[in-house]
Amino acid sequence: MTAPTLRSRHRCYAGEVRFYGHKSTEVGGEMRFAVFVPPQAAQRPVPVLFYLAGLTCTEETFMIKAAAFEAAVEAGLMLVAPDTSPRDRRYPGDDESWDFGLGAGFYLDATATPWRDGYRMHAYVTQELPALVTQHLPARRDRLGIFGHSMGGHGALVAALRHAGLYRSVSAFAPIAAPSRCPWGEKAFSRYLGSDRGAWAAWDATALVEAGGRCPPILIDQGMDDQFLEQQLHPHLFEAACRKTGQPLVLRRHDGYDHGYYFISTFMADHIGHHAAALNAA
Amino acid sequence: MTAPTLRSRHRCYAGEVRFYGHKSTEVGGEMRFAVFVPPQAAQRPVPVLFYLAGLTCTEETFMIKAAAFEAAVEAGLMLVAPDTSPRDRRYPGDDESWDFGLGAGFYLDATATPWRDGYRMHAYVTQELPALVTQHLPARRDRLGIFGHSMGGHGALVAALRHAGLYRSVSAFAPIAAPSRCPWGEKAFSRYLGSDRGAWAAWDATALVEAGGRCPPILIDQGMDDQFLEQQLHPHLFEAACRKTGQPLVLRRHDGYDHGYYFISTFMADHIGHHAAALNAA
Repeated sequence: MTAPTLRSRHRCYAGEVRFYGHKSTEVGGEMRFAVFVPPQAAQRPVPVLFYLAGLTCTEETFMIKAAAFEAAVEAGLMLVAPDTSPRDRRYPGDDESWDFGLGAGFYLDATATPWRDGYRMHAYVTQELPALVTQHLPARRDRLGIFGHSMGGHGALVAALRHAGLYRSVSAFAPIAAPSRCPWGEKAFSRYLGSDRGAWAAWDATALVEAGGRCPPILIDQGMDDQFLEQQLHPHLFEAACRKTGQPLVLRRHDGYDHGYYFISTFMADHIGHHAAALNAA
Repeated sequence: MTAPTLRSRHRCYAGEVRFYGHKSTEVGGEMRFAVFVPPQAAQRPVPVLFYLAGLTCTEETFMIKAAAFEAAVEAGLMLVAPDTSPRDRRYPGDDESWDFGLGAGFYLDATATPWRDGYRMHAYVTQELPALVTQHLPARRDRLGIFGHSMGGHGALVAALRHAGLYRSVSAFAPIAAPSRCPWGEKAFSRYLGSDRGAWAAWDATALVEAGGRCPPILIDQGMDDQFLEQQLHPHLFEAACRKTGQPLVLRRHDGYDHGYYFISTFMADHIGHHAAALNAA
């Protein structure tokens, strides 16, 4: 596996923010990701926490807006944030709307033509990227966690539910919790996966839990003034599925908070702490 | 004084980020600013810390990138960040380069035609904006502090040096410390103030200190891998002036850090603490 190319580096909280590019075999073109390397990584390999961003975001968004570094240094965690879709090769309609195509890969492996060639963001974030990071950076491959926001919050849940042993910890901010049953998800799934709704369940976190899927205890934070809560997010459906099947979930509802990074950064330290408790356990 | 118009609000760290617009008399058109209102302001008026951003920035930059909220809540400070230039009325060449005109007001009061009509960012940030904020928000007019970055770090120094009694605290990240003697400053000053360099001294922090100007003890942080350090910033000139005249200054040089917000956010809590010590003193 070829080493990624370092595009830029910035000293930050006694650690370093780095931006990398590499040729992705899953996506079939150039992909970019950002890493925060905590100071502890100079001494020993450290646990890795992957962050999946939401619609329209890039690998930069988390590093600029999430205010995660202080807590990551305290916990000794590496943070890795990939881009949100393929960008090298173009696909039909991929830049016509902000909620499909570019910046909207939904962290699934497409099965419909032509997207199945490169919209393989699930394989990318759960296999290729962890392999790349643990091979070329001082990262422990036995200590992986994953979280994300909105589309990426859902991507993190699906990643953890589909790969029971891979992640020690999982959480989400305002995830699109039941994408088969909301406009954003229906639009994306009907193109990436085709019109057979039966095939969507394998990429829907609520359906996966309903079907008996399990993962480490989940933390979800949700703002109650989130402009997308009612139409798009449906955390209550995910909550009901977890309650029914016994999947451990703490879903916190926060009055007054919206969907953006002013909300996310407020609860970022709590999420890092949730992951650190599992990732740093003996 | 007409109340500013609330454009948006976002709950954040149990406080609120707000974006306002208003008709500015100094600037002669619409101006925008952002405010972080800490939770303490629901109980009583709180001290106010003004942040002046650098070249190309807007009122959003600090709120998105600076990671200041946790420390501001701990200290009970309101944070106010204005835009960096007039934008409503257009001036010659104001969008031809990123280091002059739009986004590059340099926080001075222009004396040359035509800029003297509206490039009055110094009067705006030291008089009009504090009056507006303390009249319409739960802010203490007797507890003001000011800081900033690069162009705005210098603007904060000049604000404090020209208004000895107005601010209780001042600090800067990587300020353009002697603008009369660097390309950015020479370009801006020669147009905003005209070609007579004798008139520039009143808007140059190093010259102001050399002329006997005094202000509260200054904290400056400077990254030693800052790409603009050698050509543009000249903190050593400001340091020498302070040493010569006895102006209290702590100038910290940090190996490996550059000019951006990954550097700024690293030391943000230290700056908030520096201001809080003065603003919350009995």
